[in-house]
Amino acid sequence: MRRLALVFTGCLIGLPAQAEESVVSTLAADTIWVVTAAALVFFMQAGFALLEAGMSRAKNSVNVMMKNYMDVCLGTLMFWLVGYGLMFGNNVTGYFGTSHFMMSDVEPWDYTVLLFQTMFAATAVTICSGSMAERTRYDAYLVASAVIAAFIYPVFGSWVWGGLYGGAGWLANMGFIDFAGSTVVHSIGAWCALAGIIVLGPRTGRFSRDTGEARNIPGHNLSLVALGGFILWLGWFGFNGGSTLAATADIGLIALNTQLAAGAGALGALLFSRVFRVPILLTATVNGSIAGLVGITAGCASMEPQWAILTGLIAGMIAVAGSLIMERMKLDDVVGAVPVHGFAGVWGTLAAGMFVTGDLFNTHQVMVQLIGIVAAFVWAFPLSLLTFGLIRMTMGLRVTTAEEQQGLDVSEHYEVAYPEFHKDMTYFRQ
Amino acid sequence: MRRLALVFTGCLIGLPAQAEESVVSTLAADTIWVVTAAALVFFMQAGFALLEAGMSRAKNSVNVMMKNYMDVCLGTLMFWLVGYGLMFGNNVTGYFGTSHFMMSDVEPWDYTVLLFQTMFAATAVTICSGSMAERTRYDAYLVASAVIAAFIYPVFGSWVWGGLYGGAGWLANMGFIDFAGSTVVHSIGAWCALAGIIVLGPRTGRFSRDTGEARNIPGHNLSLVALGGFILWLGWFGFNGGSTLAATADIGLIALNTQLAAGAGALGALLFSRVFRVPILLTATVNGSIAGLVGITAGCASMEPQWAILTGLIAGMIAVAGSLIMERMKLDDVVGAVPVHGFAGVWGTLAAGMFVTGDLFNTHQVMVQLIGIVAAFVWAFPLSLLTFGLIRMTMGLRVTTAEEQQGLDVSEHYEVAYPEFHKDMTYFRQ
Amino acid sequence: MRRLALVFTGCLIGLPAQAEESVVSTLAADTIWVVTAAALVFFMQAGFALLEAGMSRAKNSVNVMMKNYMDVCLGTLMFWLVGYGLMFGNNVTGYFGTSHFMMSDVEPWDYTVLLFQTMFAATAVTICSGSMAERTRYDAYLVASAVIAAFIYPVFGSWVWGGLYGGAGWLANMGFIDFAGSTVVHSIGAWCALAGIIVLGPRTGRFSRDTGEARNIPGHNLSLVALGGFILWLGWFGFNGGSTLAATADIGLIALNTQLAAGAGALGALLFSRVFRVPILLTATVNGSIAGLVGITAGCASMEPQWAILTGLIAGMIAVAGSLIMERMKLDDVVGAVPVHGFAGVWGTLAAGMFVTGDLFNTHQVMVQLIGIVAAFVWAFPLSLLTFGLIRMTMGLRVTTAEEQQGLDVSEHYEVAYPEFHKDMTYFRQ
Repeated sequence: MRRLALVFTGCLIGLPAQAEESVVSTLAADTIWVVTAAALVFFMQAGFALLEAGMSRAKNSVNVMMKNYMDVCLGTLMFWLVGYGLMFGNNVTGYFGTSHFMMSDVEPWDYTVLLFQTMFAATAVTICSGSMAERTRYDAYLVASAVIAAFIYPVFGSWVWGGLYGGAGWLANMGFIDFAGSTVVHSIGAWCALAGIIVLGPRTGRFSRDTGEARNIPGHNLSLVALGGFILWLGWFGFNGGSTLAATADIGLIALNTQLAAGAGALGALLFSRVFRVPILLTATVNGSIAGLVGITAGCASMEPQWAILTGLIAGMIAVAGSLIMERMKLDDVVGAVPVHGFAGVWGTLAAGMFVTGDLFNTHQVMVQLIGIVAAFVWAFPLSLLTFGLIRMTMGLRVTTAEEQQGLDVSEHYEVAYPEFHKDMTYFRQ
Repeated sequence: MRRLALVFTGCLIGLPAQAEESVVSTLAADTIWVVTAAALVFFMQAGFALLEAGMSRAKNSVNVMMKNYMDVCLGTLMFWLVGYGLMFGNNVTGYFGTSHFMMSDVEPWDYTVLLFQTMFAATAVTICSGSMAERTRYDAYLVASAVIAAFIYPVFGSWVWGGLYGGAGWLANMGFIDFAGSTVVHSIGAWCALAGIIVLGPRTGRFSRDTGEARNIPGHNLSLVALGGFILWLGWFGFNGGSTLAATADIGLIALNTQLAAGAGALGALLFSRVFRVPILLTATVNGSIAGLVGITAGCASMEPQWAILTGLIAGMIAVAGSLIMERMKLDDVVGAVPVHGFAGVWGTLAAGMFVTGDLFNTHQVMVQLIGIVAAFVWAFPLSLLTFGLIRMTMGLRVTTAEEQQGLDVSEHYEVAYPEFHKDMTYFRQ
Repeated sequence: MRRLALVFTGCLIGLPAQAEESVVSTLAADTIWVVTAAALVFFMQAGFALLEAGMSRAKNSVNVMMKNYMDVCLGTLMFWLVGYGLMFGNNVTGYFGTSHFMMSDVEPWDYTVLLFQTMFAATAVTICSGSMAERTRYDAYLVASAVIAAFIYPVFGSWVWGGLYGGAGWLANMGFIDFAGSTVVHSIGAWCALAGIIVLGPRTGRFSRDTGEARNIPGHNLSLVALGGFILWLGWFGFNGGSTLAATADIGLIALNTQLAAGAGALGALLFSRVFRVPILLTATVNGSIAGLVGITAGCASMEPQWAILTGLIAGMIAVAGSLIMERMKLDDVVGAVPVHGFAGVWGTLAAGMFVTGDLFNTHQVMVQLIGIVAAFVWAFPLSLLTFGLIRMTMGLRVTTAEEQQGLDVSEHYEVAYPEFHKDMTYFRQ
């Protein structure tokens, strides 16, 4: 049990050199926490990869895994090269940063922040991959993910979190609350995904040619989906908790809210399904909990637990409802990333403004939140439409129908995920 | 390498505000450690899910995963609502707490403790799910898990760990040693599981109708079992290490004992299997290491490494022997949770009393340990028998034999885990 | 965002007892960091197990998993028994340690260091298992892994990292740089693996009897391979970051370099494959990133980010090229451990000497690095050749061809990994 006595850590007089050590110590505590959190956020990449692969067909598993694996690799390098400078560099105008590109020879703490923010950039990027699964060309996807990591994500990010080395973003100046990125990371990723699936079109056979009726294309491995959900949930303790960028006592509430909202999100998905007599699917349950996590991301540091539960509960309902709406609109989002990261992200950003401890339902704050939400869509959606459109016109964005039917593992990678099990592909084995 | 010089962290005279900062700093260090540990304990849920799904048949994989996913969600909400208050609230009588329900507007540290303890409650709850796999109704299981998280687990917990806000549990007052919960978490979970499998009865076909002979029902994916074992082991560093509820130097010994006991547990299972000429199975090896971990949980902070090894070694043997005994008694524990968490938990609680550093083999301490062990069984077993019995009489606890043969994924969830691979279920695909 | 004001943590005059508390506090911060890092390094065992099982055939999955599971168990016990003392004990000669065997009754910090170093020993040991997969006897492998954990690895380790309790290793005295073990851990493991595959010979059918042409034997589950890669990458933050053995601000750069080199390693593998018109395989991409991680392990604390990227990029190329060379030489390394851990480890150790911040391309340093690299090979390769040779002569190292064709899961473990899916093994089911 925790010691209750005050512990005075050290005292000597007239030793400035040693007094300076105390600063190192605070810095060290912040460093180990933020690096731990960064490692957890990194692991979310595995969560996304499993969730997306599990929800796709076996013939596209390698392709899904490869996209998730390479986008973190490319995203990491692009963010070091240009993204971090655009997002966190000296921000005179409030619209983008202009320093700290290709960071080198700086203070230790700057490296720590770059590491943590790299993981966030990789998260924003990878959200697209699941939505666009099973029909997107591998090299086209990599180009798009590099553009998002290097430009679309960091420029918007600079509006909210920028100015670490002078200046500040215009949304930050307005008082926009987005602690860990319901909008900055998740909605931006989701609007890029939405643009991608519009430019791409649905998978062959997803909607009936005659009636337009939606046909279910079940994922090949729901055990991987559940594992992916658990890993994403785990990573979120780093995602939200690490966004303090310091070792502080507030992390307890932040992490607790994260846990409560995730649980409530799954419950919301379950209740919505039961009320509307939809089967309570594992995929919906997992997506509900992730929507709860996305929802609490903006306000986890500034609301009390009961509001976190409400935020998560509604986010979970939104995820299930949003999936049905997407299907009605003939938008083929393989993993439901747009409802989970986009719609629940919007709700979470609003909730962060509504449920501020000591300042509940402040209309002005809600208006500011709305401005931020709209700004994110207006920035990311047209730009990513343009990006995917240009890729389609130049190198091509979508595989051929023959390749789609064969599976992208064979057509794009000359490799299959389960050569001993997947009967249809035995011709490919030696 | 670690600096050896003493580092005096800071000194200024007459600045009380800054002196108070030092308290914050200690609190912050405790917070980041306990949140990190809580995240690791959370991840154990994934370990349980994989272990249990892997040991079940493919046709029940979604069901197993769903139970593990939803019990942490419901358990989290129930523990916030009522469990934490019962377990840690002001404990005047020594038998239950009466404050801190639905925690809100408290000190940061309270949120941190609630988060950590939520993960423990979820662990106690989830132990049932594996034992009762492949034949339990989904909604019935969720009701039972809510009762365990809200009542059965926290009330016993208050006897040992209670009184965080005044008062103390009666077992704590006697000097009962259970540092991280060999009895409080693991045995309580196991006795609930034992009650569940008695009320449920064995899976159809598990024991021959004529001869009563046990028939092996192999799990569908041993790769998942091994991964689950690794994840549980990983999570245990948070489970035992975080139970300090503070950043202290003692965590090194605690974590080392955890590691040694896990390794010795697997070795114990191997040696037992070899001596009794049982095949050395992967499932037995993994269960042996988990039994080692369960065994060291009570005494990890109060014994030297060589005793931790002995504790783990014997726990691993007990797990294998206990599985054989359960089978003889026609008790169908799908994953072996009762021997691993119950029998090894009893042994570990005894070992914690026997191997106290500086006070080896103290008879009085061993008697106290026995009292705690018996109290846990006398509290949890009849109550959970009653709970499962009431559920059976009202909503029904077990699926029909037809549903059991079809698999619970189809009958309970309208979803299958591996639609492309599982031949028998192709009729279910579109 | 991080507070910028200096925080002076505490001040009282004339209270030596409380001043001593400050030491505890620094120790506590170091402890929680190193234990967290140790847990992450432990998790690498799961990464290795998944990577290796996924690259093997389904009929050998249980065997691969069992080897990975038991080598960490045995390695843990052997390292406590004798390895730690040989490696870190009082090192008068510079060639091995002679104290701290079976550690007990020591300072808390010693337990923490033992825990962390146990995970490193287990990593070195497990590298063999993947190379030698699909044809090695289970008990023979366990004997070899015990010898490596107890003798081969710790003695070499004492030359570089030894003398924690007095004395120092001869390579350390020369100024050899190997911060977290590109040579000490990864190359040593790889040279043992190389000896193993030479003594074993290739898998039946790997090379054509007539033409000697290499035949590809695809792994059974590439989803597991990708997950294994993500887990290894995650664990490396603990592997490199924890090697400070202290909570310091330098961990930010160390972890950032780790991340950048991993991303660059995958890119290097991709570029190499594209230039030489080899298909860009998932297995090569994952191995490229791991090679990047192995490469940066030696120099992560002493080079700037741009050099870390270059180090990783070249390491990734070396991994792919090295695999082709191994295949040409008819060496059957199932998972590519020798190129990834050995060849990339050599390169990384050189790079650590070449890219020292403030002292680039120092010829003397590079010569010292070369001496360390050669010493590792000269120590580990002949000794492990001898070990595997003795095992082959006495108990037998390789299963029979019939057993190899049947699969080691059946022949060695009487268990199959996927009884419902693996058609060929249905005869084995009840």
